[in-house]
Amino acid sequence: MEYLWDEMTLTFARTSMFPFFDIAHYLVSVMALKQRPGAAAVAWNNPLSSWLSAMLHCFGGGILSCIMLAEPPLKFLTNHTNILLASSIWYIVFFCPRDLVSQGYSYLPIQLLAAGMKEVTRTWKIVGGVTHANSYYRNGWIVMIAVGWARGAGGVIVTSCVELLKGDWKPEGDEWLKLSFPSKVTLLGSIIFTLQHTNHLAMSKHDLMFLYTIFLVTIKLTMMITKDTTVTLAPFEDTLNRMLFGWQQQFSLSEKKLESKLSSNGTASSGSKVTTEDSGSSERHAKKED
Amino acid sequence: MEYLWDEMTLTFARTSMFPFFDIAHYLVSVMALKQRPGAAAVAWNNPLSSWLSAMLHCFGGGILSCIMLAEPPLKFLTNHTNILLASSIWYIVFFCPRDLVSQGYSYLPIQLLAAGMKEVTRTWKIVGGVTHANSYYRNGWIVMIAVGWARGAGGVIVTSCVELLKGDWKPEGDEWLKLSFPSKVTLLGSIIFTLQHTNHLAMSKHDLMFLYTIFLVTIKLTMMITKDTTVTLAPFEDTLNRMLFGWQQQFSLSEKKLESKLSSNGTASSGSKVTTEDSGSSERHAKKED
Amino acid sequence: MEYLWDEMTLTFARTSMFPFFDIAHYLVSVMALKQRPGAAAVAWNNPLSSWLSAMLHCFGGGILSCIMLAEPPLKFLTNHTNILLASSIWYIVFFCPRDLVSQGYSYLPIQLLAAGMKEVTRTWKIVGGVTHANSYYRNGWIVMIAVGWARGAGGVIVTSCVELLKGDWKPEGDEWLKLSFPSKVTLLGSIIFTLQHTNHLAMSKHDLMFLYTIFLVTIKLTMMITKDTTVTLAPFEDTLNRMLFGWQQQFSLSEKKLESKLSSNGTASSGSKVTTEDSGSSERHAKKED
Repeated sequence: MEYLWDEMTLTFARTSMFPFFDIAHYLVSVMALKQRPGAAAVAWNNPLSSWLSAMLHCFGGGILSCIMLAEPPLKFLTNHTNILLASSIWYIVFFCPRDLVSQGYSYLPIQLLAAGMKEVTRTWKIVGGVTHANSYYRNGWIVMIAVGWARGAGGVIVTSCVELLKGDWKPEGDEWLKLSFPSKVTLLGSIIFTLQHTNHLAMSKHDLMFLYTIFLVTIKLTMMITKDTTVTLAPFEDTLNRMLFGWQQQFSLSEKKLESKLSSNGTASSGSKVTTEDSGSSERHAKKED
Repeated sequence: MEYLWDEMTLTFARTSMFPFFDIAHYLVSVMALKQRPGAAAVAWNNPLSSWLSAMLHCFGGGILSCIMLAEPPLKFLTNHTNILLASSIWYIVFFCPRDLVSQGYSYLPIQLLAAGMKEVTRTWKIVGGVTHANSYYRNGWIVMIAVGWARGAGGVIVTSCVELLKGDWKPEGDEWLKLSFPSKVTLLGSIIFTLQHTNHLAMSKHDLMFLYTIFLVTIKLTMMITKDTTVTLAPFEDTLNRMLFGWQQQFSLSEKKLESKLSSNGTASSGSKVTTEDSGSSERHAKKED
Repeated sequence: MEYLWDEMTLTFARTSMFPFFDIAHYLVSVMALKQRPGAAAVAWNNPLSSWLSAMLHCFGGGILSCIMLAEPPLKFLTNHTNILLASSIWYIVFFCPRDLVSQGYSYLPIQLLAAGMKEVTRTWKIVGGVTHANSYYRNGWIVMIAVGWARGAGGVIVTSCVELLKGDWKPEGDEWLKLSFPSKVTLLGSIIFTLQHTNHLAMSKHDLMFLYTIFLVTIKLTMMITKDTTVTLAPFEDTLNRMLFGWQQQFSLSEKKLESKLSSNGTASSGSKVTTEDSGSSERHAKKED
């Protein structure tokens, strides 16, 4: 039984992402670009600019990890096969007669399949990033976590910077306060794979890759089907926040209780303040007064 | 005859850009900086900031190609002779008594001579960029095109980023949709020199350098004398756009014709829509509805 | 006597910044972060974002010098001891019960001690930057000045860029016109140490480090006690500006005097113009008409 399990996970870990999983990743990325307002018009007016945006969406994570490790950001352009594949996907998505590709992509089973396959590539990217960083800084585990995270979920930073430079996006302070769900799971995966790589986790790499991929794909498909984005990680985050930062709230909470007892006018505002602080969630709005 | 031709192009290709062509390039760049609103005041109030802007205008293309290839962006500061020359040009332009240099530069023959010599340096930069990228990634032709383009025309990106950081420039989405004319000819040159470097073009490098420089200088001087900026490349661009992207327009155009026949209420809007789509130009405004 | 002096300066130059001087530097940096509006709320809502900002404040100069020399910007994350120390300072400052650390820091003697020790680290950073740049470009003195400056005072650039990306800061043109006082003294120090390193200054490195540190600490403490920010360098700056750029003002000043004599209607505006130009200060407002 164990031999069959080993066999299965090893075969899975040796699967090449090229071409089918890469195609799914490029398809999901380019469709995300197409759904931005004005993207189709940009493709008609300035195909070069549209092609460049598509390449940044497809290879953004790799570009960011190259910048972090002082490697040429243009390195992704040397992989001519993948560039040709991504460019073909871009061309077909934006210039197909009758917009057939977008219409086909609007069916949920197609979206689920593509999204699931894209999540598989995420695992490969995290593992690639962690291994690559280790070749630079042996046992530099913070660097390994950062590079794994960048390669798995960093594309959004690269595209946001470009949007900023193009004037299409004005950052609001709040946006940076909230890590998106893909970012959170990628950070989690990066930490786990770094622990495994530095031999702090008693599990083989191929077993971990298989289990983490199953986890990713399951979460992603569940979220797409149920349209619910934050179910799984919120309790875990709350616990972590209470442990590391929550005791300070408890401390000030008991102080407030003491103050309100001493000055018991019993106004509604202080009562509601005590109730608000009692939640202890990490999703508190930035305007909360302490 | 052929021997004379070879002799001439070889001598031309071995000409050093230092000092006369470099002086012309620095002069044109610093004058372009001086003509920005408020530049003279900045030079008086904060000479260091003005000097830095001037250096970015003069060496911006090289800085961008260094960033692309993960070389130190400060590498240009090690060439003390060129830095001294560019700094002297900046000092003379901004601090000459009675503003003599700006007055001299306002004469058209002087501007034509300087602009022509600057275009010669553009060829050298493209060739330098293509060769340099090839030393990093042998046969990485996309990288070679990108680095040649960056070194020949990338200065404007570096200075735009700095203007953005200084708050002097707010990007509008439309600006990035339109490649300037120097960018287009530099991209064309970069592609041609890359093809020559990878032995896909049956022409020697010195012949190509000579012919491309003649082309650049002729176009530039013609545009300055006639004040017309887009004559030469527009037909070529239209043809290319029709070939690669135009057939989709034809397809939707015949669809629209069919729809308007079937629902022939003959409103003015649909009639004008058909007329608009019939132009097929790539300079269509981004707000056009498809 | 000379032997005692040598002994003292050598011992001083061999002092390690770790841990006490580094603690002071991290404390001052994190307190500067905490005093920004909304920083405490960000720490509550998104500790990861707050921790990242704190790391950029503490290690920003090193990150900028790495970017300038095309080294991995993440290099600072490999020094686990310093990261742990800085993270602990951040945690204690933001999450201490009853905000004890901020209250302790509000006492002037504590601030003076921490600021003085932070200025000592500035000298070490400038020297480290100059030496490091020399290992890349032997005798590239402009690069050495730039890297020394970046490492000593470049943190503010890194944090400003991040603030810009977060939308918390809109750059005004004027801000970049005025170098802050720490930037000016760091530039001065960088130039001096570069001259010493290239053997143009007949002084040993440890003597220079001692004297420059005494100078920095004295200036900083004097400024904090007297609350005066620009006393010391303004006369020196004015002299330098007059020498390099002032003669042009003298020239146009005598021209103006001649013009006002010739057209002596004696209006108040031209009289005040002459008076304004006569000041010759480099702190002239950017709106001055020339």
